[in-house]
Amino acid sequence: MILRHPEPDQIRIDGVLSALGNPVRLAAVAVLDAGGKHNCSSVLTVLGVTSKSTMTHHWRVLRESGVIWQWPSGRENLLSLRREDLDARYPGLLDAILAGTRRDQEAARDHEPQPAGR
Amino acid sequence: MILRHPEPDQIRIDGVLSALGNPVRLAAVAVLDAGGKHNCSSVLTVLGVTSKSTMTHHWRVLRESGVIWQWPSGRENLLSLRREDLDARYPGLLDAILAGTRRDQEAARDHEPQPAGR
Repeated sequence: MILRHPEPDQIRIDGVLSALGNPVRLAAVAVLDAGGKHNCSSVLTVLGVTSKSTMTHHWRVLRESGVIWQWPSGRENLLSLRREDLDARYPGLLDAILAGTRRDQEAARDHEPQPAGR
Repeated sequence: MILRHPEPDQIRIDGVLSALGNPVRLAAVAVLDAGGKHNCSSVLTVLGVTSKSTMTHHWRVLRESGVIWQWPSGRENLLSLRREDLDARYPGLLDAILAGTRRDQEAARDHEPQPAGR
């Protein structure tokens, strides 16, 4: 099965933003940003997501918007971030988004209730 | 009627990206980026949007994600971009998104069929 991916010049910013406007997909992209190929199961494990079918939907949204490459390999799918294509078309966008994601996570941690001393 | 807006520290990046992941809302934000207050009707005119109720939905999505201020004034609503709040929380994000929007528009113009000479 050949999976459908947009060419670099078919990528549109509203599609990219819509794909990334979801906490699970943002977290997945942050994992893929380490670079290289990742298999779906390993990303699921990092994210703590247990529903494979939910994640299949998320991968499709990311792939069809041009954010990731996804290709079959044996019984698995491999994934990688299309960082070069995104950086070429939208300079600074992915970095600003990933920095913003970390910023939100840090702010959330700062607001967690402190454990009662014992 | 007091319209609900998130405080700056309640803004979340997935909400902002989801709000901006739509061509009409992106175009509206590009108009508001000129700065100052705009009334809803004038933005509708610039965008060429005729459905007021569709736009009411778009304004709500932008407001509730923290992208715009919206407040009643007489029979109208006034709007402005929350650029300072967004720039403080997500440096470079809005600029990268607006530059990307212009980039897509330019690319679309370059690919328009040339009029047949006559």
